Amino acid sequence: MLITNATLATLRDDSGFGLIPEGAVAARDGSIIWAGPAAEMPDDLQNTDGYDAGGRLLTPALIDCHTHVVFGGNRAEEFEQRLNGAGYAEIARAGGGIVSTVRATRAADEDALLRDALTRVDALIAEGVTLIEIKSGYGLDAETELKMLRTARAIAGARDIEVRTSFLGAHALPAEYAGRPDAYIDGLCIPTLQAAHAEGLVDAVDGFCEGIAFSPAQIARVFDVARALGLPVKLHAEQLSHLGGATLAAGYGALSADHLEYAQAADAQAMAASGTVAVMLPGAFYTLRETQMPPIQAFRDHGVPMAVATDCNPGSSPLTSPLLAMNMACTLFRMTPVEALLGMTAHAARALGAPDRGRIIKGARADLCLWDLRHPAELAYRIGYNPLHKRITGGRL
Amino acid sequence: MLITNATLATLRDDSGFGLIPEGAVAARDGSIIWAGPAAEMPDDLQNTDGYDAGGRLLTPALIDCHTHVVFGGNRAEEFEQRLNGAGYAEIARAGGGIVSTVRATRAADEDALLRDALTRVDALIAEGVTLIEIKSGYGLDAETELKMLRTARAIAGARDIEVRTSFLGAHALPAEYAGRPDAYIDGLCIPTLQAAHAEGLVDAVDGFCEGIAFSPAQIARVFDVARALGLPVKLHAEQLSHLGGATLAAGYGALSADHLEYAQAADAQAMAASGTVAVMLPGAFYTLRETQMPPIQAFRDHGVPMAVATDCNPGSSPLTSPLLAMNMACTLFRMTPVEALLGMTAHAARALGAPDRGRIIKGARADLCLWDLRHPAELAYRIGYNPLHKRITGGRL
Ligand SMILES: [Zn+2]
Ligand SMILES: [Zn+2]
Repeated sequence: MLITNATLATLRDDSGFGLIPEGAVAARDGSIIWAGPAAEMPDDLQNTDGYDAGGRLLTPALIDCHTHVVFGGNRAEEFEQRLNGAGYAEIARAGGGIVSTVRATRAADEDALLRDALTRVDALIAEGVTLIEIKSGYGLDAETELKMLRTARAIAGARDIEVRTSFLGAHALPAEYAGRPDAYIDGLCIPTLQAAHAEGLVDAVDGFCEGIAFSPAQIARVFDVARALGLPVKLHAEQLSHLGGATLAAGYGALSADHLEYAQAADAQAMAASGTVAVMLPGAFYTLRETQMPPIQAFRDHGVPMAVATDCNPGSSPLTSPLLAMNMACTLFRMTPVEALLGMTAHAARALGAPDRGRIIKGARADLCLWDLRHPAELAYRIGYNPLHKRITGGRL
Repeated sequence: MLITNATLATLRDDSGFGLIPEGAVAARDGSIIWAGPAAEMPDDLQNTDGYDAGGRLLTPALIDCHTHVVFGGNRAEEFEQRLNGAGYAEIARAGGGIVSTVRATRAADEDALLRDALTRVDALIAEGVTLIEIKSGYGLDAETELKMLRTARAIAGARDIEVRTSFLGAHALPAEYAGRPDAYIDGLCIPTLQAAHAEGLVDAVDGFCEGIAFSPAQIARVFDVARALGLPVKLHAEQLSHLGGATLAAGYGALSADHLEYAQAADAQAMAASGTVAVMLPGAFYTLRETQMPPIQAFRDHGVPMAVATDCNPGSSPLTSPLLAMNMACTLFRMTPVEALLGMTAHAARALGAPDRGRIIKGARADLCLWDLRHPAELAYRIGYNPLHKRITGGRL
């Protein structure tokens, strides 16, 4: 595969877009073998028939490194109730909140879960996503957690997209364990993780460390098991309060810590030391009308790579547009357009333990997007607009 | 035309979605002749071949009643500069801000303006818009204001969409009139309005009443001319401060007053008396990171109809998704999903002086949208997702 006459945003390092006007990219066997100014193309490529990009912008394909796209039902009714003035207690009494998603996810069979999830995955694909992370965590029983992970694996078979799964048994406490979080962690979450791993369903282990979810000590027990199984970890941390989850995750060499609104400079330092990516989820910040911004400048100062993801989920972020997540990262978190694009490409790849993705450099996987744009800053600048011209996976045009 | 097996959100009055499960709609000569439960369909329709909507949701088509989709260039570079730390003064020195859009719009020929605008209009159409308002106001000289309005008219020829134009000469003071706003209003804005009207290019007259734009007295002089020409008026009012524009507009029987973050209860009262629609523009509120919310409850209390629009423009709202505007109206302004849908349909129609649009009732124009959804609350609940199945204009499937 050869693409010519493109403006390349290579993201070759973290210092900027790495722009190459009048550039060309060649790939073989799924990987980039050459990228640079067309004028410097090697002789053997000069004689290859190329695809003329018409001066369009070429970037690495997008990567959504934090999603919950597999779930049953939706929460539109609850969204409406809340705007009609219902309080959280009233909604909970009416069976709303995460409980309603757990109920609908348990009730759905794998076919229905897959069909529903694909409507969301197709929206991500339409904006250029080629690699997506998908979490369990709306089952909270063994059967449904496994069903969710099998559905996530099935997505990779149903669409031209790669999937990385995360086991998120430690997402919320199901009603049947009310008041007994330790019993849930030790008696259900950990055995289910082991069963899911035995079935080859788990690429990483995640948790939700928060007052309304699980304590650092409970998360640590799950992470100890992950370590014993040889699985990488990641964590929903410091979203609504500072409990120490980010530094805990860093201590386990986590791939990422996610949300992080209440993280502090010391957390950034610990994450930098462990190579943990800070995953920004502005869709949840927006939906929950949060006002505490994540410490972006501390992440910059300590050299913590920042990713951006949709956090697509039915409650706090029913968002299926990676480009809108990039705009929100800029508008709400004051990230730069370069940081937003790195966050949806190279840094998202790193958060998934896939460092050969997300840059246009020799040896990287040839997952690319061609956009009807002239400059990559436009990707984050526009709101609710999809300029994708062509999505390229593994060098297949 | 007959559509059967649809869930209708009729919006038959302002009290709710006006849901009809298992509904049907029939149209002839562009207008709805019957809508209701399929079981109650008149005999002559029972024998007509209908389109089976498969249980999908049918709503009135969307109407975007406040846009600036015709302009040259874009402001992605400025967006990036600001996020890289440049202040307003620095950006102005570098030729940024509205001045850069005026320069690019003056430089573009009508073909280029049309081509660019169509990329934005196509995004609106893809989400079910059938009627759009388009303003001038980036010319600020006679030639370019007329060119913008001609381009707006050309859009209705190039696409299956209706266009209402607004003359917005009183948008900003061009550099050549610096320090002489009265000379601009009397010597350029008003004569250009008269010329544009003579060419049949003006459906309504708009202005920007704000400290950084024009005073109530200056706007009143433009509105006096509009009244003499028999043209309805509307106004960008109370966006950044309370100058009295909303009540001024109401005094002229304005179709709408738009933005309104700083409007007060007395303004709502005046608007209710004059039948002036309050147009909410949450995309600009979001992009400018405003914190002053428009007085939604005062509009409710006084019975002022609220519309919602994209305000699509290159500076403060580069937004081309009406559904996202609806979500923002709910999330940021706490409007309800019913209010958001009324705001993008029946109330938007009223803001454009087209009261026969935006409801599924006998006699209304048969502009409809069929969505891959079960409940209309999902339209505002989802973020960055386009569930449009089919857009119907004038009863043509
Ligand atoms: Zn999450
Ligand atoms: Zn405007």
